[in-house]
Amino acid sequence: MSGGGSRVPIAVLGGARTPGVDLAAELAAGVEEGGGEVVDARRADGIVWVDPRDPEGLRGALDASPARWVQLPFAGVEPFIAAGVVDPRLLWTCAKGIYGESCAEHALGFVLMAAHRMHVHLRARAWVAEEDKVHERRFAGNATVAVIGTGGIGGALVRMLAPFEVRVRAANRSGRPLTGTERTVAADGIPEICADADFVVLAAALTATTRGLFDAAMLARLPPHAWLINVARGGLVDTDALVGALRSGALGGAALDVTDPEPLPPEHPLWGLPNAVITPHVANTWVMGAPSLRALVARNVRRFAAGEDLEGAIDPGLGY
Amino acid sequence: MSGGGSRVPIAVLGGARTPGVDLAAELAAGVEEGGGEVVDARRADGIVWVDPRDPEGLRGALDASPARWVQLPFAGVEPFIAAGVVDPRLLWTCAKGIYGESCAEHALGFVLMAAHRMHVHLRARAWVAEEDKVHERRFAGNATVAVIGTGGIGGALVRMLAPFEVRVRAANRSGRPLTGTERTVAADGIPEICADADFVVLAAALTATTRGLFDAAMLARLPPHAWLINVARGGLVDTDALVGALRSGALGGAALDVTDPEPLPPEHPLWGLPNAVITPHVANTWVMGAPSLRALVARNVRRFAAGEDLEGAIDPGLGY
Repeated sequence: MSGGGSRVPIAVLGGARTPGVDLAAELAAGVEEGGGEVVDARRADGIVWVDPRDPEGLRGALDASPARWVQLPFAGVEPFIAAGVVDPRLLWTCAKGIYGESCAEHALGFVLMAAHRMHVHLRARAWVAEEDKVHERRFAGNATVAVIGTGGIGGALVRMLAPFEVRVRAANRSGRPLTGTERTVAADGIPEICADADFVVLAAALTATTRGLFDAAMLARLPPHAWLINVARGGLVDTDALVGALRSGALGGAALDVTDPEPLPPEHPLWGLPNAVITPHVANTWVMGAPSLRALVARNVRRFAAGEDLEGAIDPGLGY
Repeated sequence: MSGGGSRVPIAVLGGARTPGVDLAAELAAGVEEGGGEVVDARRADGIVWVDPRDPEGLRGALDASPARWVQLPFAGVEPFIAAGVVDPRLLWTCAKGIYGESCAEHALGFVLMAAHRMHVHLRARAWVAEEDKVHERRFAGNATVAVIGTGGIGGALVRMLAPFEVRVRAANRSGRPLTGTERTVAADGIPEICADADFVVLAAALTATTRGLFDAAMLARLPPHAWLINVARGGLVDTDALVGALRSGALGGAALDVTDPEPLPPEHPLWGLPNAVITPHVANTWVMGAPSLRALVARNVRRFAAGEDLEGAIDPGLGY
């Protein structure tokens, strides 16, 4: 920043225990990198909130601060909106977009794993006879993918899919076309793009409209060999309906980094299904995301000081 | 083809039992699609050989045929060269190149799996505590990849890596630069590009020079967190040295679709190592590869009839 000018006062609050990385220290460094000054809540113009699981803590901090802007550290803000802490008179930003690549590469890893049946071979820990090598499928040049949600994850995934020359259809709220897709539909077109998809990747925000979107009826639209991939929010899927479809063979498989409930309890039937693959919400851990979040904080502090639009602005009405 | 002209006589021989697909029928269809006529060996100008495990059968067929050209159905021709059946007075072609995308997507699946530790989570079949989510790594924008071999697999892999914006170095016999890499080295530069690689992907032919290339000394050049990925030929790696490096922690992990010995016997120590992932040579099965092979046969039959250069020509001296 230009020397001598006053630095924008920002509080970094809610020091969560984020494993493997001191997120509060990282984000305080981001504030400084953006030309801000880390200050006490009582004289802060903006708050960088660190703890993803403490909306009540944030409520208390807001009561004690004149801040006009709050930066949240995660992409999915629905628990904080549900807690009623996202005061629409303030400016709110979250980390939507910046974790997209990390979740998208997780989704692509799931897709390639499923196509080549790596999950089966990994668990078997045994060579298979030549005559059993008949179920693997080539992905490149040969698959149809439906991407539900065209935010940070969906956009990054579509870019990663480009070299594979597969058919990609996408869905978002408005149907606004996403580059790199054959076509983009609005929400009412989702059943249609699922109907001939080999892979359906969930990359949408969890809102009142998307909760339970993949219920028994929607799952029944997918071809029986198709895989459902979820790297967004567990609540997008009706888990009981999913278990039913996986058990009956109505669905080829499911690869989930997020579940409902989450964490998935040890006795949950999903753990035992050969065509279900679970990773424990690690597509973007704090260790993986901290550098991007620190850089976002720096950019937004600079923009806030300059009176510019901020990245990752939340629309409290839409819920994301 | 132009109507009325004589069709080039091609024999389709060595009808292997390829599981899940009648390869001899597919390749006979490819001959017809290329404007050829499927004939008996005794009056064939060319032979399309089907059985990947029967060099002696091919020797017998050659003795009984005036054919000047032989098309082999696989990419790695070293067993047929070792058997002394690849008569350099004839024109030989193989399927090198056409299976590249399939093996490359397998390699990329391995890489994403390893970066996000999917293999650990898949085998655990249990959620992990937040404080244990510290070992996953982002791949995009964050990794260095060494690709050993720039044929069909290496070329396809480098194209698939482009959207990830990772550092890619490659190696081939001559050091001829491969588009999409930061740099390409000749064989003597391999230790150097391995030294700071997060992932080393083996995509080379197995020849007298590459056999055992990744021995104890070469494996010791890799950083201790690095993963060795092999989707080419098991013999490129000294398996005992690899087991040692995986056990001692000198190497982060290994993901292998090919092994030496192959099939890997049930009692082999690799099966029991938590940082080893084995798939049983399924990166490109006959089912996956048959459409590409049929199309290659059609193109080469057309080129052969027209006196043009053929795709996938083998240099018997080089061994690939």
